[in-house]
Amino acid sequence: MREPDGVRTGPASQQGMRRANLALVLGVIASGPRSRAEVAAETGLTRAAVSSLTEQLIAGGLVVEAGPATPSGKVGRPGTALGLNPLGPGGLGAEIGVRHLGACVVDLRGEVRAVRRREVANHGREPAAVMADLAALLRAAVAEAGLRPAGLTLAVPGLVDTSGALLRRAANLDWQDVPLAAELRAALRPAADGLAELPVEADNEANLGGLAERWLGDGPEDFLYVSAEAGVGAAIVVGGRLLRGARGYAGEFGHVPVHPGGPRCACGAHGCLERYAGDAAVLRAAGLAGARGDWVPLLAERAAAGQESARAALAGAGSALGIAAAGAVNLLDPAEVVLGGGYARLAPWLLPAMRAELTARVTVRPWSEDRLTVSRLGRRGPLLGAAVSVVRAIVADPAPLAGG
Amino acid sequence: MREPDGVRTGPASQQGMRRANLALVLGVIASGPRSRAEVAAETGLTRAAVSSLTEQLIAGGLVVEAGPATPSGKVGRPGTALGLNPLGPGGLGAEIGVRHLGACVVDLRGEVRAVRRREVANHGREPAAVMADLAALLRAAVAEAGLRPAGLTLAVPGLVDTSGALLRRAANLDWQDVPLAAELRAALRPAADGLAELPVEADNEANLGGLAERWLGDGPEDFLYVSAEAGVGAAIVVGGRLLRGARGYAGEFGHVPVHPGGPRCACGAHGCLERYAGDAAVLRAAGLAGARGDWVPLLAERAAAGQESARAALAGAGSALGIAAAGAVNLLDPAEVVLGGGYARLAPWLLPAMRAELTARVTVRPWSEDRLTVSRLGRRGPLLGAAVSVVRAIVADPAPLAGG
Repeated sequence: MREPDGVRTGPASQQGMRRANLALVLGVIASGPRSRAEVAAETGLTRAAVSSLTEQLIAGGLVVEAGPATPSGKVGRPGTALGLNPLGPGGLGAEIGVRHLGACVVDLRGEVRAVRRREVANHGREPAAVMADLAALLRAAVAEAGLRPAGLTLAVPGLVDTSGALLRRAANLDWQDVPLAAELRAALRPAADGLAELPVEADNEANLGGLAERWLGDGPEDFLYVSAEAGVGAAIVVGGRLLRGARGYAGEFGHVPVHPGGPRCACGAHGCLERYAGDAAVLRAAGLAGARGDWVPLLAERAAAGQESARAALAGAGSALGIAAAGAVNLLDPAEVVLGGGYARLAPWLLPAMRAELTARVTVRPWSEDRLTVSRLGRRGPLLGAAVSVVRAIVADPAPLAGG
Repeated sequence: MREPDGVRTGPASQQGMRRANLALVLGVIASGPRSRAEVAAETGLTRAAVSSLTEQLIAGGLVVEAGPATPSGKVGRPGTALGLNPLGPGGLGAEIGVRHLGACVVDLRGEVRAVRRREVANHGREPAAVMADLAALLRAAVAEAGLRPAGLTLAVPGLVDTSGALLRRAANLDWQDVPLAAELRAALRPAADGLAELPVEADNEANLGGLAERWLGDGPEDFLYVSAEAGVGAAIVVGGRLLRGARGYAGEFGHVPVHPGGPRCACGAHGCLERYAGDAAVLRAAGLAGARGDWVPLLAERAAAGQESARAALAGAGSALGIAAAGAVNLLDPAEVVLGGGYARLAPWLLPAMRAELTARVTVRPWSEDRLTVSRLGRRGPLLGAAVSVVRAIVADPAPLAGG
């Protein structure tokens, strides 16, 4: 059974129809070069309407004539193929990690045109100082890409409210109630390159990693994306869209109780997943409590070298991940559970225990081992997701840029 | 940040606009009697369009002239108020429980016109025999209501696939792979009253209980509804809509691991919530393992009378419910957790321990005790939800009945 949609809030109008049809046409072109005739056939619009709409998209710099269309075997000359404009407006992604900053520019087709990364320990630093470093990195990436970004999305390791502007809390940065969009815009302001005028949005890194998985991977429409970077996070993708929760704080997978009577977590509760599968917990279990630097290659190298303590620590983390994921699968019925972020590289040692728990605990519905998969994007996911989210938004509603 | 909508799959059309505007107008009228002028003002449609659309809705039997509109203080005579037709097409709800059957007819406004219940032990009975009893109950309810139902929705205690027709598994009925819609239609077939021709859908009882809470309660748009009837179930409501999962099996809250090393559950896993908060588990903990009859009044009466074993058993169940709910809140960020079904009556003894666990374990985001609420509908929820789902679908898309 499917429940009915809610009551619509406004009348259908001619203007709304044109806006929707601009998006419809651009959506078809975005899925691969098409002649006007093919666009008409796929959308059900008349050829005249398609011509008018594509003219508008070309004028807005979103679409280009990409050369002759592939002959279709039909009588008559093939039309000119239309494609997304690789020199059109791009997407600018930014990332604040606990130990690094990132910047990425993608073109309208989602192809990476520039990517920059800088290692810097951000824990406890003032947001303004971090934003100044980030602004310099973004500026360098934009200069390299040679594209004008149409918007900027920032990935952060913390709780971002539904407005996409306020970071409520990022324990691993020691930040609280930071107005991310305003801070980043202020850091971008001095220059005349227009970056300070871009619309800025922010989102949790796991959310953007999950969206990247959806957009750039071959995954299903419904999945749970689990990642570790600063702490343990998750993105819940339902029908191809992110489940954000009532206030935008969904996905705090790291604080799902795994062993309710277990050791105390930094959050104050006992036996949270993070206490078993977070970076600090795994390092401690591997006898590397004081280790400096990046935990993922450190553990991966030791486990690959056969070090028993590293392998046992990762197996323990995998077991805890499996218990928490089993609860989520029973509750949400995703088609897949995807292991991403830092976990992707550690997957060889996490997966066996995680699979065993899922198989033992997901019994009242069909479940098979191959529904637990590993992200191909790994730790690049959140930054890619941030940049691509900007161009996805353009393709979904091109009217503002196409003068619609 | 909000990610863009997916690409639309068809062009906006005049016919689609009229269909959408029929729904828009009926939606406004459904929220309370309105004059045509008021409908025009609220929808943004022209008065001429509203007149034409309401004419069609009146001809289809969905809307009636309900008498003079309330004077609005404006110059001129008030128009005639339009309302939903209480004698128009209704909704027929059916329920198969482990110990009872239910039937309910609501009118287009969602008001109950007839409700029937019959106590019968259904565990292990042949589906055809149960359906025959249910058909008789439905027929009696429809006769009493004096309305022609436009559809039938069936609530069952089990996993229903996304098609809404196949019951994959109902452990508490000992049913597996039952084609519910076909079986019920077959049982309704002999008679000439047209009931066998109704569109039939089926859904999990917790899903329908959760939707009833959304539609008939004053709840928020995002909540987790937790209920116990046969086993422990949940409905996840997101943005006012049910989250169904990839295959329709979301909400198996009873098999979320609470104490992973705990006792074995009937599902084969260890330490599932149902093993602590399901009917059999609570009765056992209360020293009533062999008790017959309805577990809810039995436990409620003993707890109300101050019996320590009953109170301790319910406190234990509340604690397990709180641990599992804390995981769900961290994962999903609902605005509320609603205790429904059989739990509603037992709430006085479940709530204190459940509240304590939630408060202790939901710490990285705002959470307050009053976000845990109790359903006013209680055990009537699923049957009401089933009947109301039919009329909600009519109001959301009246075109098929209004000749649109």
